[in-house]
This record gives sequence, C-alpha cells and structure tokens, in this order.
Amino acid sequence: MERYLEDYAVGQTYGSGRIRIEEERIKSFAAEFDPQPFHTDHETASRTIFKGLAASGWHTAAMTMRLMVDGDLKPAGGIVGTGFEEFRWSRPVRPGDELHIQCDVLEVRPSKSRPDQGLIKLRTTTFNKDNEPVQIMVGTLLVPRRSKPD
Amino acid sequence: MERYLEDYAVGQTYGSGRIRIEEERIKSFAAEFDPQPFHTDHETASRTIFKGLAASGWHTAAMTMRLMVDGDLKPAGGIVGTGFEEFRWSRPVRPGDELHIQCDVLEVRPSKSRPDQGLIKLRTTTFNKDNEPVQIMVGTLLVPRRSKPD
Repeated sequence: MERYLEDYAVGQTYGSGRIRIEEERIKSFAAEFDPQPFHTDHETASRTIFKGLAASGWHTAAMTMRLMVDGDLKPAGGIVGTGFEEFRWSRPVRPGDELHIQCDVLEVRPSKSRPDQGLIKLRTTTFNKDNEPVQIMVGTLLVPRRSKPD
Repeated sequence: MERYLEDYAVGQTYGSGRIRIEEERIKSFAAEFDPQPFHTDHETASRTIFKGLAASGWHTAAMTMRLMVDGDLKPAGGIVGTGFEEFRWSRPVRPGDELHIQCDVLEVRPSKSRPDQGLIKLRTTTFNKDNEPVQIMVGTLLVPRRSKPD
C-alpha cells in the first residue's frame, strides 16, 4: 500500500521496525566517512566528550533513512526529502544498540510550483533500545497527489 | 595545527580537498541505507523526479563530513556537531562527480554551560565539479577554548 498526499493528516504517527548497529560497522563507516577517534577507538573515545565509542551522527542519520524507507510511512514515489529545519543528535549511539523511529506528521499542504505534488512536514525521532531519543529531525518530504487539482 | 575558539572569527572561510563519488559506491551505499530505485537503478531513475541515477542525500552528507574532517577547519578536539538549523539538498549528485566544500564562519561564542568550550556556527556548502552547490547546511560545532575564563 502506497500513500498519497490525501492520505496524510496532521497528528498521524508512523512507526518502523528495528535495526541493530554493530561495533564493526560503526568503525568501518567512520573509517570511510568520519575518521575521528571517538568513532574508531574505544580507548581514545573514553577520554573524549563522548565518554566511549559512539557511532558517527551520519551513520545514525543513514540508518534512520533505512528505517524510513522500510517503515510505515510509505509515500507513493518513495521518500524524497527537500530539507530540514531542525536536526540534532541528543545522545550518543553505542555499539550493539537497536534503533527504531517514529514519524509525526506536523503539516500537510499542496505544492505551489508542482500541481501534482504536495509536501508533508515530519518530525522523525530516532530512539535507542531504551526508548531514549538519539536523533531528532524536522523536515519536509515531497509526496504525490492522488488527484490533480481542477 | 589545531584551532581553538579564539582562532575563529565571523567572516572566515575554510576549504577542503576534493573527493570523487563513484557509481558503484552510490549503489552500494543506497543498498545498505537508502534502497530506492533513483539511487540504485539508471533505467528506473530516469523516470523519477531525479531524471537519472543520483546519490542518496545521506551519502552526500557523509562525504561532506569526510571533507570536513580532512579539511582546513581543524578544530582541536575534532569535529563535534551539535545540530543544524538549516539543511537542504539543492541538486542531485551524479556518478563520477567530484565534491568539495566551503565552510563560512557565521558566529563565534563561548558556551554558557561548559566554561572550557565554545560554539561556532558554520554554513557548510558542498559543491560539485562545476562549482554548483549540491548541499547547504547551517549548523553548530563545539570547539574547545584555549584559555579558561577568569
């Protein structure tokens, strides 16, 4: 089942499955994209502001995207983000943690420039296995309209 | 050379090297984190809003992080972001493109809660090989102070 602009409404909430973040992937992701000791080495990480090995925030963001793609939101045409007005990491993500997300619909409106499209504003919160938020983002997705306007 | 809060000033600009984004990595990154046809398949991608294969925005964001880590900004203690107040993708990134960044210092201030730290607000723009912006983010980094306040 795919959803169109007409199917979304302010106040709706969509969930996801869970994915586990492994220590080896934390280190290999960081080696490629964010090679800093708090993401690659336990010993050094323990003496930093993270107080232990933590995933790169971009790794958390990428896993959040995977949870969105596989999650319950299911916009027709896929998940196409235009940008964010808020984006922050509230807690470190640790090796072996398990992540899931919740998407809250904050706004639903037709696009002015594209008559066959609309925009939904979402707050997507990523939680760790203790249900504590690790990332909060408020952004806008492009979603097709089922019916063309007259 | 590592920089402290005292070394940053509004109006400064810091650059980076360049990295090339390969088609195979666009597809494998998307297979793991953003499995949608506009990031994995030329034929289907050509019929989407992207009009051809494009990198996941999170791949562009992760590569931007690598450019920041290896770039000229060099804050002592590493690149530790607290969040963003603006974040958007302005153009698709294509296979074989070459990315570089420019960081503009917008604000410099001591932290209220951490006397040994400060905050710098940066606009980080990621450019393609034709010097067109593909991603713009405005966010805040935590940076250590060289001298403790009295």
